[in-house]
Amino acid sequence: MLESLQKIRIVLIATTHPGNVGATARAMCNMGLANLYLVRPERYPHADAEARAAGAVHILRGATIVQSLDEALAGCSLVVGTSARERRIPWPVLPARQAVEQVIQEASEPESGDIAILFGREEHGLTNDELQRCNLHLTIPSNPDYSSLNLAMAVQLIAYELRVAALEGMTLSATEKWDQPWADAQTIEHMLHQLEEVLVATTFLDPQNPRQVMTRLRRMFARNRLDKIEVGILRGMLAFILQRLKP
Amino acid sequence: MLESLQKIRIVLIATTHPGNVGATARAMCNMGLANLYLVRPERYPHADAEARAAGAVHILRGATIVQSLDEALAGCSLVVGTSARERRIPWPVLPARQAVEQVIQEASEPESGDIAILFGREEHGLTNDELQRCNLHLTIPSNPDYSSLNLAMAVQLIAYELRVAALEGMTLSATEKWDQPWADAQTIEHMLHQLEEVLVATTFLDPQNPRQVMTRLRRMFARNRLDKIEVGILRGMLAFILQRLKP
Repeated sequence: MLESLQKIRIVLIATTHPGNVGATARAMCNMGLANLYLVRPERYPHADAEARAAGAVHILRGATIVQSLDEALAGCSLVVGTSARERRIPWPVLPARQAVEQVIQEASEPESGDIAILFGREEHGLTNDELQRCNLHLTIPSNPDYSSLNLAMAVQLIAYELRVAALEGMTLSATEKWDQPWADAQTIEHMLHQLEEVLVATTFLDPQNPRQVMTRLRRMFARNRLDKIEVGILRGMLAFILQRLKP
Repeated sequence: MLESLQKIRIVLIATTHPGNVGATARAMCNMGLANLYLVRPERYPHADAEARAAGAVHILRGATIVQSLDEALAGCSLVVGTSARERRIPWPVLPARQAVEQVIQEASEPESGDIAILFGREEHGLTNDELQRCNLHLTIPSNPDYSSLNLAMAVQLIAYELRVAALEGMTLSATEKWDQPWADAQTIEHMLHQLEEVLVATTFLDPQNPRQVMTRLRRMFARNRLDKIEVGILRGMLAFILQRLKP
Protein backbone atom coordinates (compact mmCIF):
# COMPACT_ATOMS: atom_id res chain seq x y z
CA MET A 1 0.00 0.00 0.00
CA LEU A 2 3.01 2.33 0.25
CA GLU A 3 2.63 2.95 -3.48
CA SER A 4 -0.68 4.67 -2.73
CA LEU A 5 1.39 7.52 -1.25
CA GLN A 6 2.40 8.34 -4.83
CA LYS A 7 -1.18 9.45 -5.56
CA ILE A 8 -1.07 12.11 -2.89
CA ARG A 9 -0.36 15.75 -3.64
CA ILE A 10 0.66 18.16 -0.93
CA VAL A 11 -0.66 21.56 -2.05
CA LEU A 12 0.67 24.70 -0.33
CA ILE A 13 -1.28 27.83 -1.09
CA ALA A 14 0.35 31.27 -1.17
CA THR A 15 3.13 30.53 1.29
CA THR A 16 5.08 33.57 2.45
CA HIS A 17 8.08 31.91 4.17
CA PRO A 18 10.30 29.98 1.75
CA GLY A 19 11.90 28.13 4.70
CA ASN A 20 8.56 26.44 5.28
CA VAL A 21 8.46 25.20 1.71
CA GLY A 22 11.90 23.63 2.11
CA ALA A 23 10.98 22.07 5.45
CA THR A 24 7.80 20.72 3.83
CA ALA A 25 9.82 19.03 1.08
CA ARG A 26 12.03 17.36 3.69
CA ALA A 27 9.03 16.29 5.80
CA MET A 28 7.37 14.77 2.74
CA CYS A 29 10.48 12.91 1.64
CA ASN A 30 11.05 11.54 5.16
CA MET A 31 7.62 9.91 4.90
CA GLY A 32 7.86 8.81 1.28
CA LEU A 33 5.68 11.50 -0.35
CA ALA A 34 6.92 13.11 -3.55
CA ASN A 35 4.28 15.35 -5.16
CA LEU A 36 4.53 18.94 -4.01
CA TYR A 37 2.33 21.64 -5.57
CA LEU A 38 2.88 25.33 -4.85
CA VAL A 39 0.07 27.74 -5.67
CA ARG A 40 1.36 31.31 -6.10
CA PRO A 41 4.26 31.00 -3.63
CA GLU A 42 5.72 34.34 -2.47
CA ARG A 43 9.50 34.89 -2.49
CA TYR A 44 10.17 31.77 -4.47
CA PRO A 45 12.57 30.17 -5.39
CA HIS A 46 14.71 31.13 -2.40
CA ALA A 47 17.94 29.98 -0.71
CA ASP A 48 16.11 29.40 2.58
CA ALA A 49 13.90 26.81 0.92
CA GLU A 50 16.93 24.93 -0.46
CA ALA A 51 18.68 25.03 2.92
CA ARG A 52 15.75 23.65 4.88
CA ALA A 53 14.99 20.97 2.27
CA ALA A 54 18.35 19.33 3.13
CA GLY A 55 18.45 15.89 1.50
CA ALA A 56 15.03 16.41 -0.11
CA VAL A 57 16.06 19.18 -2.46
CA HIS A 58 14.96 17.02 -5.42
CA ILE A 59 11.36 17.15 -4.12
CA LEU A 60 11.60 20.92 -3.84
CA ARG A 61 13.08 21.38 -7.32
CA GLY A 62 10.54 18.97 -8.76
CA ALA A 63 7.60 20.89 -7.27
CA THR A 64 4.81 21.92 -9.64
CA ILE A 65 4.30 25.68 -9.43
CA VAL A 66 0.87 26.92 -10.53
CA GLN A 67 -1.09 30.16 -10.46
CA SER A 68 -4.52 28.79 -9.53
CA LEU A 69 -5.97 26.15 -7.26
CA ASP A 70 -7.79 24.67 -10.28
CA GLU A 71 -4.47 23.76 -11.85
CA ALA A 72 -3.30 22.12 -8.65
CA LEU A 73 -6.49 20.05 -8.39
CA ALA A 74 -6.65 18.82 -11.99
CA GLY A 75 -7.00 15.03 -12.00
CA CYS A 76 -7.86 14.75 -8.31
CA SER A 77 -10.79 12.62 -7.15
CA LEU A 78 -10.62 13.69 -3.51
CA VAL A 79 -9.67 17.06 -2.04
CA VAL A 80 -8.94 17.43 1.65
CA GLY A 81 -8.55 20.79 3.38
CA THR A 82 -6.65 21.32 6.60
CA SER A 83 -8.68 23.53 8.86
CA ALA A 84 -8.03 25.21 12.17
CA ARG A 85 -10.35 24.25 14.96
CA GLU A 86 -11.97 27.69 15.22
CA ARG A 87 -13.69 27.45 11.87
CA ARG A 88 -17.43 27.03 11.98
CA ILE A 89 -18.61 26.16 8.54
CA PRO A 90 -21.00 23.30 7.86
CA TRP A 91 -18.61 20.76 6.40
CA PRO A 92 -17.55 17.29 7.46
CA VAL A 93 -14.51 17.77 9.72
CA LEU A 94 -12.49 14.76 10.85
CA PRO A 95 -9.51 14.51 13.18
CA ALA A 96 -6.32 13.92 11.20
CA ARG A 97 -6.07 10.21 11.89
CA GLN A 98 -9.58 9.37 10.70
CA ALA A 99 -9.31 11.65 7.66
CA VAL A 100 -6.04 10.02 6.65
CA GLU A 101 -7.64 6.57 6.83
CA GLN A 102 -10.17 7.73 4.24
CA VAL A 103 -7.41 9.17 2.09
CA ILE A 104 -5.43 5.92 2.08
CA GLN A 105 -8.55 3.90 1.39
CA GLU A 106 -9.36 6.11 -1.61
CA ALA A 107 -5.75 6.05 -2.81
CA SER A 108 -5.66 2.26 -2.74
CA GLU A 109 -8.60 2.01 -5.17
CA PRO A 110 -7.01 1.26 -8.55
CA GLU A 111 -9.44 3.56 -10.40
CA SER A 112 -9.13 6.59 -8.09
CA GLY A 113 -7.57 9.82 -9.24
CA ASP A 114 -4.96 11.73 -7.27
CA ILE A 115 -5.74 13.07 -3.83
CA ALA A 116 -4.91 16.64 -2.88
CA ILE A 117 -4.31 17.80 0.66
CA LEU A 118 -4.46 21.58 0.90
CA PHE A 119 -2.51 23.68 3.38
CA GLY A 120 -3.23 27.40 3.68
CA ARG A 121 -1.21 30.54 4.25
CA GLU A 122 1.03 30.73 7.31
CA GLU A 123 -1.01 33.56 8.83
CA HIS A 124 -4.56 32.94 7.69
CA GLY A 125 -4.93 29.34 6.58
CA LEU A 126 -7.35 28.51 3.76
CA THR A 127 -10.02 30.96 2.63
CA ASN A 128 -13.67 29.97 2.74
CA ASP A 129 -13.65 29.66 -1.06
CA GLU A 130 -10.73 27.25 -0.88
CA LEU A 131 -12.33 25.25 1.94
CA GLN A 132 -15.48 24.90 -0.13
CA ARG A 133 -13.47 23.19 -2.86
CA CYS A 134 -12.76 20.35 -0.42
CA ASN A 135 -14.67 17.10 0.01
CA LEU A 136 -13.46 16.78 3.54
CA HIS A 137 -11.89 18.96 6.20
CA LEU A 138 -9.23 17.67 8.49
CA THR A 139 -8.18 19.08 11.83
CA ILE A 140 -5.07 18.30 13.87
CA PRO A 141 -5.82 17.81 17.58
CA SER A 142 -3.93 20.48 19.49
CA ASN A 143 -3.76 22.58 22.63
CA PRO A 144 -6.77 24.92 22.52
CA ASP A 145 -4.67 27.63 24.19
CA TYR A 146 -2.08 27.58 21.40
CA SER A 147 -3.31 25.67 18.40
CA SER A 148 -1.35 27.45 15.68
CA LEU A 149 1.07 24.90 14.26
CA ASN A 150 3.93 25.86 12.01
CA LEU A 151 2.97 25.02 8.41
CA ALA A 152 5.77 22.50 7.79
CA MET A 153 5.03 20.84 11.14
CA ALA A 154 1.42 20.35 10.06
CA VAL A 155 2.61 18.79 6.80
CA GLN A 156 4.99 16.57 8.78
CA LEU A 157 2.17 15.28 10.99
CA ILE A 158 -0.14 14.52 8.08
CA ALA A 159 2.66 12.90 6.05
CA TYR A 160 3.49 10.72 9.06
CA GLU A 161 -0.15 9.72 9.54
CA LEU A 162 -0.33 8.86 5.83
CA ARG A 163 2.74 6.65 6.05
CA VAL A 164 1.54 4.86 9.18
CA ALA A 165 -1.92 4.31 7.64
CA ALA A 166 -0.35 2.98 4.43
CA LEU A 167 1.85 0.61 6.45
CA GLU A 168 -1.19 -0.62 8.41
CA GLY A 169 -3.02 -1.18 5.14
CA MET A 170 -0.12 -3.40 4.07
CA THR A 171 -0.43 -5.51 7.22
CA LEU A 172 -4.13 -6.04 6.57
CA SER A 173 -3.79 -6.84 2.88
CA ALA A 174 -0.95 -9.23 3.65
CA THR A 175 -3.42 -11.44 5.54
CA GLU A 176 -6.79 -10.83 3.96
CA LYS A 177 -8.30 -7.76 2.43
CA TRP A 178 -11.45 -6.67 4.24
CA ASP A 179 -13.87 -7.20 1.42
CA GLN A 180 -17.07 -7.06 3.45
CA PRO A 181 -18.99 -3.86 4.03
CA TRP A 182 -19.48 -2.88 7.67
CA ALA A 183 -22.82 -3.54 9.31
CA ASP A 184 -25.05 -0.56 10.05
CA ALA A 185 -26.06 0.40 13.57
CA GLN A 186 -29.69 -0.64 13.18
CA THR A 187 -28.86 -4.22 12.18
CA ILE A 188 -26.52 -4.51 15.14
CA GLU A 189 -29.31 -3.21 17.38
CA HIS A 190 -31.66 -5.93 16.06
CA MET A 191 -29.03 -8.55 16.74
CA LEU A 192 -28.61 -7.32 20.32
CA HIS A 193 -32.38 -7.54 20.87
CA GLN A 194 -32.40 -11.12 19.59
CA LEU A 195 -29.48 -11.91 21.86
CA GLU A 196 -31.36 -10.54 24.86
CA GLU A 197 -34.40 -12.61 23.92
CA VAL A 198 -32.26 -15.74 23.82
CA LEU A 199 -30.68 -14.94 27.18
CA VAL A 200 -34.07 -14.45 28.81
CA ALA A 201 -35.49 -17.60 27.17
CA THR A 202 -32.64 -19.72 28.56
CA THR A 203 -33.12 -18.11 32.02
CA PHE A 204 -29.44 -17.04 31.89
CA LEU A 205 -30.70 -13.47 32.10
CA ASP A 206 -33.31 -12.60 34.72
CA PRO A 207 -35.23 -9.54 33.49
CA GLN A 208 -35.98 -8.67 37.14
CA ASN A 209 -32.28 -8.66 37.96
CA PRO A 210 -30.35 -8.10 34.72
CA ARG A 211 -27.11 -7.06 36.43
CA GLN A 212 -24.62 -5.81 33.81
CA VAL A 213 -24.91 -8.68 31.38
CA MET A 214 -26.39 -6.80 28.43
CA THR A 215 -24.28 -3.71 29.14
CA ARG A 216 -21.13 -5.77 28.94
CA LEU A 217 -22.19 -7.65 25.81
CA ARG A 218 -23.23 -4.40 24.17
CA ARG A 219 -19.88 -2.84 24.99
CA MET A 220 -18.06 -5.90 23.70
CA PHE A 221 -19.77 -5.68 20.31
CA ALA A 222 -19.45 -1.89 20.19
CA ARG A 223 -15.67 -2.15 20.59
CA ASN A 224 -15.44 -4.36 17.56
CA ARG A 225 -16.54 -3.13 14.18
CA LEU A 226 -18.75 -5.90 12.79
CA ASP A 227 -19.12 -6.56 9.09
CA LYS A 228 -22.42 -7.48 7.44
CA ILE A 229 -21.66 -11.17 7.08
CA GLU A 230 -20.72 -11.45 10.74
CA VAL A 231 -23.94 -9.81 11.88
CA GLY A 232 -25.83 -12.03 9.44
CA ILE A 233 -24.28 -15.15 10.97
CA LEU A 234 -25.01 -13.96 14.52
CA ARG A 235 -28.62 -13.14 13.66
CA GLY A 236 -29.13 -16.48 11.87
CA MET A 237 -27.62 -18.36 14.79
CA LEU A 238 -29.78 -16.52 17.35
CA ALA A 239 -32.94 -17.14 15.27
CA PHE A 240 -32.15 -20.88 15.13
CA ILE A 241 -31.57 -20.98 18.89
CA LEU A 242 -34.83 -19.12 19.61
CA GLN A 243 -36.77 -21.43 17.33
CA ARG A 244 -35.44 -24.48 19.16
CA LEU A 245 -36.07 -22.96 22.58
CA LYS A 246 -39.68 -22.03 21.82
CA PRO A 247 -41.13 -24.96 19.96
CA MET B 1 -5.87 12.09 31.04
CA LEU B 2 -4.51 15.26 29.47
CA GLU B 3 -2.98 16.11 32.84
CA SER B 4 -0.68 13.11 32.39
CA LEU B 5 1.12 15.17 29.73
CA GLN B 6 2.45 17.29 32.59
CA LYS B 7 4.58 14.37 33.76
CA ILE B 8 6.44 14.20 30.48
CA ARG B 9 9.85 15.78 29.98
CA ILE B 10 11.24 16.42 26.54
CA VAL B 11 15.02 16.17 26.90
CA LEU B 12 17.22 17.52 24.10
CA ILE B 13 20.86 16.52 24.35
CA ALA B 14 23.67 18.75 23.07
CA THR B 15 21.68 20.50 20.35
CA THR B 16 23.78 22.58 17.95
CA HIS B 17 21.04 24.59 16.14
CA PRO B 18 19.20 26.98 18.46
CA GLY B 19 16.38 27.30 15.91
CA ASN B 20 15.55 23.66 16.60
CA VAL B 21 15.22 24.36 20.31
CA GLY B 22 12.75 27.15 19.62
CA ALA B 23 10.76 25.05 17.15
CA THR B 24 10.72 22.26 19.76
CA ALA B 25 9.21 24.62 22.35
CA ARG B 26 6.47 25.61 19.91
CA ALA B 27 5.78 21.99 18.91
CA MET B 28 5.48 21.03 22.58
CA CYS B 29 3.16 23.91 23.43
CA ASN B 30 0.94 23.15 20.42
CA MET B 31 0.36 19.71 21.90
CA GLY B 32 0.07 20.75 25.54
CA LEU B 33 3.53 19.68 26.76
CA ALA B 34 5.44 22.09 29.01
CA ASN B 35 8.60 20.51 30.46
CA LEU B 36 11.66 21.10 28.32
CA TYR B 37 15.12 20.01 29.48
CA LEU B 38 18.26 21.03 27.64
CA VAL B 39 21.44 19.09 28.33
CA ARG B 40 24.56 21.11 27.41
CA PRO B 41 22.94 23.07 24.55
CA GLU B 42 25.44 24.75 22.20
CA ARG B 43 24.99 28.41 21.19
CA TYR B 44 22.30 29.00 23.79
CA PRO B 45 20.40 31.22 24.55
CA HIS B 46 20.05 32.56 21.00
CA ALA B 47 17.76 34.86 19.05
CA ASP B 48 16.94 32.08 16.55
CA ALA B 49 15.48 30.01 19.34
CA GLU B 50 13.25 32.86 20.49
CA ALA B 51 12.09 33.56 16.92
CA ARG B 52 11.14 29.96 16.16
CA ALA B 53 9.40 29.50 19.52
CA ALA B 54 6.78 32.09 18.42
CA GLY B 55 3.91 31.99 20.91
CA ALA B 56 5.65 29.35 23.03
CA VAL B 57 8.53 31.50 24.19
CA HIS B 58 7.45 30.91 27.82
CA ILE B 59 8.20 27.20 27.38
CA LEU B 60 11.62 28.07 25.98
CA ARG B 61 12.47 30.53 28.76
CA GLY B 62 11.18 28.11 31.36
CA ALA B 63 13.42 25.29 30.09
CA THR B 64 15.65 23.55 32.63
CA ILE B 65 19.26 23.74 31.48
CA VAL B 66 21.56 21.08 32.90
CA GLN B 67 25.09 19.85 32.36
CA SER B 68 24.50 16.12 32.64
CA LEU B 69 21.89 13.58 31.63
CA ASP B 70 21.68 12.47 35.27
CA GLU B 71 20.31 15.83 36.25
CA ALA B 72 17.71 15.70 33.48
CA LEU B 73 16.56 12.24 34.54
CA ALA B 74 16.26 12.88 38.28
CA GLY B 75 12.78 11.85 39.45
CA CYS B 76 11.92 9.90 36.30
CA SER B 77 10.41 6.42 36.49
CA LEU B 78 10.55 5.75 32.75
CA VAL B 79 13.15 6.85 30.21
CA VAL B 80 12.47 6.54 26.50
CA GLY B 81 15.13 7.07 23.84
CA THR B 82 14.41 8.01 20.25
CA SER B 83 16.50 5.91 18.00
CA ALA B 84 17.16 5.88 14.28
CA ARG B 85 16.30 2.71 12.47
CA GLU B 86 19.89 1.80 11.59
CA ARG B 87 20.89 1.08 15.16
CA ARG B 88 21.42 -2.54 16.00
CA ILE B 89 21.64 -2.85 19.73
CA PRO B 90 19.75 -5.42 21.72
CA TRP B 91 17.06 -3.24 23.30
CA PRO B 92 13.29 -3.23 23.07
CA VAL B 93 12.43 -0.94 20.14
CA LEU B 94 8.83 0.05 19.50
CA PRO B 95 7.27 2.13 16.75
CA ALA B 96 6.34 5.60 18.05
CA ARG B 97 2.62 4.90 18.41
CA GLN B 98 3.03 1.79 20.57
CA ALA B 99 5.80 3.35 22.67
CA VAL B 100 3.64 6.39 23.33
CA GLU B 101 0.77 4.18 24.51
CA GLN B 102 3.12 2.77 27.15
CA VAL B 103 4.22 6.25 28.13
CA ILE B 104 0.66 7.49 28.62
CA GLN B 105 -0.27 4.36 30.54
CA GLU B 106 2.68 4.89 32.89
CA ALA B 107 1.96 8.61 33.22
CA SER B 108 -1.65 7.95 34.20
CA GLU B 109 -0.57 5.84 37.20
CA PRO B 110 -0.92 8.16 40.20
CA GLU B 111 2.29 6.87 41.80
CA SER B 112 4.53 7.07 38.73
CA GLY B 113 7.41 9.51 38.53
CA ASP B 114 8.08 11.73 35.54
CA ILE B 115 8.78 10.27 32.14
CA ALA B 116 11.70 11.48 30.04
CA ILE B 117 11.83 11.24 26.28
CA LEU B 118 15.37 11.77 25.00
CA PHE B 119 16.26 13.28 21.65
CA GLY B 120 19.86 13.24 20.48
CA ARG B 121 22.16 15.58 18.59
CA GLU B 122 21.06 16.84 15.17
CA GLU B 123 23.91 15.04 13.41
CA HIS B 124 24.52 11.91 15.45
CA GLY B 125 21.48 11.19 17.61
CA LEU B 126 21.97 9.56 21.00
CA THR B 127 25.23 7.86 21.95
CA ASN B 128 25.23 4.21 22.96
CA ASP B 129 25.80 5.27 26.57
CA GLU B 130 22.74 7.47 26.44
CA LEU B 131 20.63 4.80 24.76
CA GLN B 132 21.60 2.38 27.51
CA ARG B 133 20.08 4.71 30.08
CA CYS B 134 16.67 4.12 28.45
CA ASN B 135 14.03 1.59 29.43
CA LEU B 136 12.62 1.63 25.95
CA HIS B 137 13.66 2.76 22.50
CA LEU B 138 11.22 4.34 20.14
CA THR B 139 11.53 4.65 16.39
CA ILE B 140 9.53 6.84 14.02
CA PRO B 141 8.42 4.99 10.87
CA SER B 142 10.01 6.73 7.90
CA ASN B 143 11.23 6.41 4.34
CA PRO B 144 14.24 4.06 4.45
CA ASP B 145 15.87 6.07 1.64
CA TYR B 146 15.76 9.28 3.67
CA SER B 147 14.97 8.63 7.28
CA SER B 148 16.74 11.56 8.88
CA LEU B 149 14.04 13.76 10.37
CA ASN B 150 14.70 17.28 11.55
CA LEU B 151 14.97 17.25 15.36
CA ALA B 152 12.02 19.56 16.03
CA MET B 153 9.90 17.60 13.54
CA ALA B 154 10.62 14.42 15.52
CA VAL B 155 9.58 16.17 18.73
CA GLN B 156 6.42 17.41 16.99
CA LEU B 157 5.44 13.88 15.93
CA ILE B 158 6.00 12.41 19.38
CA ALA B 159 4.20 15.30 21.11
CA TYR B 160 1.26 14.79 18.74
CA GLU B 161 1.17 11.04 19.40
CA LEU B 162 1.25 11.78 23.14
CA ARG B 163 -1.69 14.17 22.88
CA VAL B 164 -3.76 11.80 20.74
CA ALA B 165 -3.04 8.90 23.10
CA ALA B 166 -3.97 11.03 26.12
CA LEU B 167 -7.22 12.08 24.42
CA GLU B 168 -8.04 8.45 23.63
CA GLY B 169 -7.39 7.57 27.25
CA MET B 170 -9.91 10.26 28.22
CA THR B 171 -12.56 8.75 25.97
CA LEU B 172 -12.08 5.41 27.67
CA SER B 173 -12.00 6.71 31.22
CA ALA B 174 -15.00 8.94 30.52
CA THR B 175 -17.12 5.81 30.07
CA GLU B 176 -15.52 3.21 32.26
CA LYS B 177 -11.92 2.48 33.08
CA TRP B 178 -10.90 -0.89 31.71
CA ASP B 179 -10.50 -2.63 35.02
CA GLN B 180 -10.90 -6.18 33.78
CA PRO B 181 -7.95 -8.37 32.92
CA TRP B 182 -7.90 -9.73 29.37
CA ALA B 183 -8.98 -13.29 28.76
CA ASP B 184 -6.33 -15.84 27.90
CA ALA B 185 -6.23 -17.68 24.59
CA GLN B 186 -7.20 -21.05 26.07
CA THR B 187 -10.43 -19.77 27.64
CA ILE B 188 -11.38 -18.14 24.35
CA GLU B 189 -10.69 -21.43 22.59
CA HIS B 190 -13.05 -23.23 25.02
CA MET B 191 -15.71 -20.63 24.35
CA LEU B 192 -15.38 -21.12 20.59
CA HIS B 193 -15.79 -24.89 21.02
CA GLN B 194 -18.97 -24.36 23.05
CA LEU B 195 -20.21 -21.98 20.38
CA GLU B 196 -19.62 -24.58 17.68
CA GLU B 197 -21.47 -27.19 19.75
CA VAL B 198 -24.46 -24.84 20.06
CA LEU B 199 -24.44 -24.12 16.32
CA VAL B 200 -24.42 -27.83 15.49
CA ALA B 201 -27.13 -28.61 18.08
CA THR B 202 -29.45 -26.00 16.55
CA THR B 203 -28.70 -27.35 13.05
CA PHE B 204 -27.56 -23.84 12.05
CA LEU B 205 -24.17 -25.38 11.33
CA ASP B 206 -23.98 -28.58 9.30
CA PRO B 207 -20.73 -30.34 10.22
CA GLN B 208 -20.76 -31.97 6.76
CA ASN B 209 -20.89 -28.57 5.10
CA PRO B 210 -19.55 -26.02 7.57
CA ARG B 211 -18.89 -23.32 4.95
CA GLN B 212 -17.03 -20.42 6.55
CA VAL B 213 -19.25 -19.93 9.58
CA MET B 214 -16.73 -20.84 12.29
CA THR B 215 -13.88 -19.17 10.42
CA ARG B 216 -15.78 -15.92 10.33
CA LEU B 217 -16.88 -16.10 13.97
CA ARG B 218 -13.34 -16.95 15.01
CA ARG B 219 -11.98 -14.00 13.10
CA MET B 220 -14.62 -11.74 14.60
CA PHE B 221 -13.62 -12.65 18.15
CA ALA B 222 -9.91 -12.56 17.32
CA ARG B 223 -10.20 -8.97 16.11
CA ASN B 224 -11.62 -7.92 19.42
CA ARG B 225 -9.67 -8.28 22.62
CA LEU B 226 -12.05 -9.94 25.08
CA ASP B 227 -11.81 -9.43 28.81
CA LYS B 228 -12.36 -12.20 31.36
CA ILE B 229 -15.86 -11.12 32.35
CA GLU B 230 -16.98 -11.01 28.73
CA VAL B 231 -15.71 -14.51 28.03
CA GLY B 232 -17.32 -15.61 31.30
CA ILE B 233 -20.69 -14.23 30.18
CA LEU B 234 -20.39 -15.82 26.74
CA ARG B 235 -19.45 -19.20 28.21
CA GLY B 236 -22.27 -19.05 30.77
CA MET B 237 -24.74 -18.11 28.08
CA LEU B 238 -23.62 -20.92 25.78
CA ALA B 239 -23.77 -23.47 28.63
CA PHE B 240 -27.36 -22.41 29.42
CA ILE B 241 -28.34 -22.69 25.75
CA LEU B 242 -26.77 -26.14 25.40
CA GLN B 243 -28.49 -27.36 28.56
CA ARG B 244 -31.87 -26.26 27.22
CA LEU B 245 -31.22 -27.76 23.79
CA LYS B 246 -30.15 -31.16 25.11
CA PRO B 247 -32.58 -31.96 27.91
